[in-house]
Amino acid sequence: MRFVIKIQTPDKKGLIAQITQIIFQFNLNILKNDEFVDKENNLFFMRSEIEGECEIAILKQKIKVAINDESSQVEILPCQKKKIVILCTKESHCLGDLLIRYDSNELNADILAVISNYEVLKPLCQKFNLPFICISHEGKSREDHEKQIIEVLKQYPSDYIILAKYMRILSPNFVEEFEGKLINIHHSFLPAFVGANPYKQAYERGVKIIGATAHFVNNELDEGPIIYQDITKVNHTMDWKEMQKHGRDVEKIVLSKALNLALEEKIFVYCNKTIVF
Amino acid sequence: MRFVIKIQTPDKKGLIAQITQIIFQFNLNILKNDEFVDKENNLFFMRSEIEGECEIAILKQKIKVAINDESSQVEILPCQKKKIVILCTKESHCLGDLLIRYDSNELNADILAVISNYEVLKPLCQKFNLPFICISHEGKSREDHEKQIIEVLKQYPSDYIILAKYMRILSPNFVEEFEGKLINIHHSFLPAFVGANPYKQAYERGVKIIGATAHFVNNELDEGPIIYQDITKVNHTMDWKEMQKHGRDVEKIVLSKALNLALEEKIFVYCNKTIVF
Amino acid sequence: MRFVIKIQTPDKKGLIAQITQIIFQFNLNILKNDEFVDKENNLFFMRSEIEGECEIAILKQKIKVAINDESSQVEILPCQKKKIVILCTKESHCLGDLLIRYDSNELNADILAVISNYEVLKPLCQKFNLPFICISHEGKSREDHEKQIIEVLKQYPSDYIILAKYMRILSPNFVEEFEGKLINIHHSFLPAFVGANPYKQAYERGVKIIGATAHFVNNELDEGPIIYQDITKVNHTMDWKEMQKHGRDVEKIVLSKALNLALEEKIFVYCNKTIVF
Amino acid sequence: MRFVIKIQTPDKKGLIAQITQIIFQFNLNILKNDEFVDKENNLFFMRSEIEGECEIAILKQKIKVAINDESSQVEILPCQKKKIVILCTKESHCLGDLLIRYDSNELNADILAVISNYEVLKPLCQKFNLPFICISHEGKSREDHEKQIIEVLKQYPSDYIILAKYMRILSPNFVEEFEGKLINIHHSFLPAFVGANPYKQAYERGVKIIGATAHFVNNELDEGPIIYQDITKVNHTMDWKEMQKHGRDVEKIVLSKALNLALEEKIFVYCNKTIVF
Repeated sequence: MRFVIKIQTPDKKGLIAQITQIIFQFNLNILKNDEFVDKENNLFFMRSEIEGECEIAILKQKIKVAINDESSQVEILPCQKKKIVILCTKESHCLGDLLIRYDSNELNADILAVISNYEVLKPLCQKFNLPFICISHEGKSREDHEKQIIEVLKQYPSDYIILAKYMRILSPNFVEEFEGKLINIHHSFLPAFVGANPYKQAYERGVKIIGATAHFVNNELDEGPIIYQDITKVNHTMDWKEMQKHGRDVEKIVLSKALNLALEEKIFVYCNKTIVF
Repeated sequence: MRFVIKIQTPDKKGLIAQITQIIFQFNLNILKNDEFVDKENNLFFMRSEIEGECEIAILKQKIKVAINDESSQVEILPCQKKKIVILCTKESHCLGDLLIRYDSNELNADILAVISNYEVLKPLCQKFNLPFICISHEGKSREDHEKQIIEVLKQYPSDYIILAKYMRILSPNFVEEFEGKLINIHHSFLPAFVGANPYKQAYERGVKIIGATAHFVNNELDEGPIIYQDITKVNHTMDWKEMQKHGRDVEKIVLSKALNLALEEKIFVYCNKTIVF
Repeated sequence: MRFVIKIQTPDKKGLIAQITQIIFQFNLNILKNDEFVDKENNLFFMRSEIEGECEIAILKQKIKVAINDESSQVEILPCQKKKIVILCTKESHCLGDLLIRYDSNELNADILAVISNYEVLKPLCQKFNLPFICISHEGKSREDHEKQIIEVLKQYPSDYIILAKYMRILSPNFVEEFEGKLINIHHSFLPAFVGANPYKQAYERGVKIIGATAHFVNNELDEGPIIYQDITKVNHTMDWKEMQKHGRDVEKIVLSKALNLALEEKIFVYCNKTIVF
Repeated sequence: MRFVIKIQTPDKKGLIAQITQIIFQFNLNILKNDEFVDKENNLFFMRSEIEGECEIAILKQKIKVAINDESSQVEILPCQKKKIVILCTKESHCLGDLLIRYDSNELNADILAVISNYEVLKPLCQKFNLPFICISHEGKSREDHEKQIIEVLKQYPSDYIILAKYMRILSPNFVEEFEGKLINIHHSFLPAFVGANPYKQAYERGVKIIGATAHFVNNELDEGPIIYQDITKVNHTMDWKEMQKHGRDVEKIVLSKALNLALEEKIFVYCNKTIVF
C-alpha cells in the first residue's frame, strides 16, 4: 500500500525525529520526504510518501499525539486514482489536453463529467464517452445558474473541480461549497492582468512576456493561491489574437501541471499561498 | 560608413519600393532591413542598416519627399559609439554589470559619469576611473534635488540616461526634460508589482515566477513603454530576500539587453509601446 | 487573395527595391515583409505576405527576370489550408495534440490520414473520424515496410508528413521520395542525445535541462535542419520516466509550433539550417 | 553556530528517524532538511542545515554509529565564508561578474587570487586589489605549465577553484590533485558541443537554443558532473559571434549559480551526477 502523510503544525524542535520515529515503528518505508519551515509564521510542513501496511487511523492517531498541538493538521491519503469534474465554456485547448491525457492513462484521475454553459464542446466530450452536461446561464440569475451546476456536481462527487477555461465568475457561495477543490487556469501571469481578456490587456500594455497561472479559487477574483505559472515571449508583431494563440499552449500545460501536483497531494495551502513539494 | 535609417509613417502601398529605390539610387548597400505594419493604427515602420557613402542630409530629404506625408518621421543615425550617464542609488549589480561590459569594450557606449544620491557606489566607480557625482536628496525638496541632477546631466550631454536601480521617482519636469532618453530597470515583470519593493509584493502574493522589466520612463510610475522583460522561477522556500537575490541576476541582464537595443537604434516608441527590430 | 512570395537568390544591391517595385506595379499590398542576408554565403532571402489580385505566373516571371540569376529560387504560394499526413507509433501525446487542434480548427491544415506501425492509436484516430492505416513492420524488411507506407502516402498526397513520434528510422530512399516534406519531433535538444531513448541518455548524463527538437528529416539520423527547439528544467529527483513525462509536454508544443511555421510558409532551408521568419 | 550535515549512505528503513533523533538529543534546531533516495542505486542522501551549539566531532561520531555502515559518508561543515581561487584566460565576463559580487559582499567567499595564462585580465583584477598571477603556457610543456599553477594554488589553499573561462584542458594529474574542487563553465548545454568553440559548432548546426553548463571537472573533457545549466534562444540572424555575445550572459549567471550552490554545501556528487538540494 502506498500513501501520503501531510502534516502542518507549529514548528518546534524534534518534530521530524518524532514523526519519522513513529513511521519507523510501524515498519513503514519512506519513499520520499519533504519538509519546509516557514520561519515568518513558525509553521512546519511535512509530506512523506510511504510504502507499507498499517492501520491508517492508528498511525494518524499516534502522529497527532506525538505532535501534541491542537492546531496541527495531519492527513493520511492513499495514493490512488482521484476523481475530477471539468467545467468549461467554449475553448477546447485545456479540455482537449486533459482528454488526451485521460485517454492515454497519463492522467492519474477519472474524469466523471464535463459541465459547460454552452453546447460547443459536447461533440468533443462525446468522442471520449464522457457525460457532458450543458447548463446554459442565459436567462438565469447567477444564483439559479450556479444552483443547477451545484446539483450536477453533487451527482458526481469528485476530489477536484477543474475550471478549464470556464469563463464565468463564481459566487462566494459556490466557492465556499467546494473550497480547496476548485482549480482554475487564468490566462495571464498573475497578478498582472486580472479579469477579462488578459491578452488584450497584455497587447495594449505592450508587454514582451505573456503567461498563464493555475490557482485555487477563492472569493477574490484571480486572487487565489497560485499553484503553477509559466510564460512565453511575445513581440510587437503579434496582435492580441496571436498572443492568445501562443498563450493557449502555455495555459494547457500549466493547468495540467497544476492538476498533477494536486492529484499527487503535493500542495499545501496556507496564507493564500501554496507550498509545492 | 555605416548608418541606420528609421522611418515611421502612415502605411500605404509602395512604401518599401519607394524607399529602397532611393537607397539603391544612392548606391548604398542594405545590410539588414526590417519592416512592420501596425494595421490597427495604419502605421508603417522601417529600419535599415546601411553601408556606403552619401550625403546624409540629401538622402533624408529624398526619402521625405518620396514618402510625402507631413506626419512621417525619418531619422538617419550613424552607427557609432554613443554616450550614456548612469543614475544609481546603493545596489551595485546593474551598475557593476555595465562597468564590466564597458571595461571590456563590449558596451558600444562611453559611460560619461555616474550620479547617485548616496556615496555607496563611489569606490566601485573610481576603480573604473569614472566621474562619480553624489547628490544627496536629504534635506532637499524633490525639485531642488532634481535641479542639481539636471545641472550635472547637462554637463555630460548623453544619448541615454540609464536608471540602474535609481530608487527615486522622477518628477514630470525631469522626465520631460530627457524624454525618450531615460531607460529604467524595474524589478518585476510589469505590470505586476508596480511601485515599491516588488519582491516583497511577489513573496506575499505567492507567485511562482518573478521578473524584471526595462522600459523607457514616462510620467506614469512604471507605466512607460516596455523594451525587454525576462523572468526566473521561484518557489515557496524563498523568502523575499532570496527572491531579490535571484531577481538581481535577471535585472542586470534585462537592463543590459535593453540598453544594447537602444544603442543599436533598434527601438521605435509609439502608443506607449515599443517595436523592437 | 492572399499569398506568400519566397525568394532565395545570391545577394546584390537593389534586390529589395527591384522586387518590391514589381509588387507595387501589380498594385499588391505587402502585409508583412522579411528579408535576411547570409553574408557568409552571400545569399539573400525574402518572404512577403501579399494581399491583392494578380496573375501569379506573370508576377513570378517578372520577379525572376528582375532578379536575373540562374540560381535564384522564386516561389509564390497561396495562403490556404494545407494537407498533412501523420505517422506515429504508440505514443499519443503528439498525435493527440494535433487532433485537438485540428478538431477546433486551430490547425490550418487538413489531416488526411494517420499511418502507424501499431494498432494502438487506432481508437483515438477513429474518434476524430480519420483514416487510420496500420502497417506493421513485423516480419518485413525495412524496404518492404516502407514500400507499403509509400503506397499509402501516395494515395493521400500531402504538403507535409508529420512524424509524430514515429519510432522507426527512415531509409534514404524514403527520405528522398518526400524530401522537404518530412517533419520529425526528436525528444532531445539536438545535437545532444541523438538516437534511441534520449531521456535515458539524459538521465544517465545527469543533465539539468531536457528538450525537444522539431526538424526536417534528411539522411543523417537526427541531423536534419532544425526548425524549432524548446526545453524544460529537470533535477535529480526525476528518473528517466519522469523526465519523459515532462519532456512529452515540450515535444508536443515544439512539434505543433514547427508545423505551424511550415504551414505558414515561414521557413527556408539551406546549408542544413533553417531561416524562420 | 550554523552548520550543514551531509550524509550519503546505503538506504534502509528508519534512517531519517535515527539521524534526526540524534540531532534532537543534541538540542539542535533543523532549519532546513532535504532527503533523497536514489532507488536505482539504493542510496540515501540527506542534507540538514542546523542551528545550535554542540561538539561537532561527537555529533558526527554518534551519527556514524547510528548509521552503522562502512560505506557511509558523513560530513559536518560550518556555514562560513569559503575561499576560492579563480583561473581564467582572456575573457572578462565570468571573472568580472564574480568580482562585482565579491565587491558587494554578495559572494559568500573570499577570492584569494586570480591565475591566468595571459596578462589581459590583470588590470581588472588590480582594480579589486586581488593578487593576479600570470603563468604563460608559451614555450612550456603542459606538465611544466601545470606544475607552476599547482605551486601557486598551494600557496593559496582554497575550497574551490573556479575555471572562469580558463581555456586550457587540464591534465589528469592536475584534476586528481584538486578533485571535487574544480568548477568549470562550459559554453554549451552539454552534452551538446563538447570541446572547442561550441558557439561556432552551434551556429553551424543551426540550433535554435544555446546554453551554458557549470560542472565539476573530471578527466573526461566536458564530461564531469553537471551542477547547473541554462539556455537562451537564438535565431538565423545571429552569426556565431552574436551567439557568443548572448551566450556570455548565460555563462556568467550559470557559473555564479553553480558556485553559490557549492559554497552553500548543497551539492552531492556520485555516479558522475549531482544531487542539488
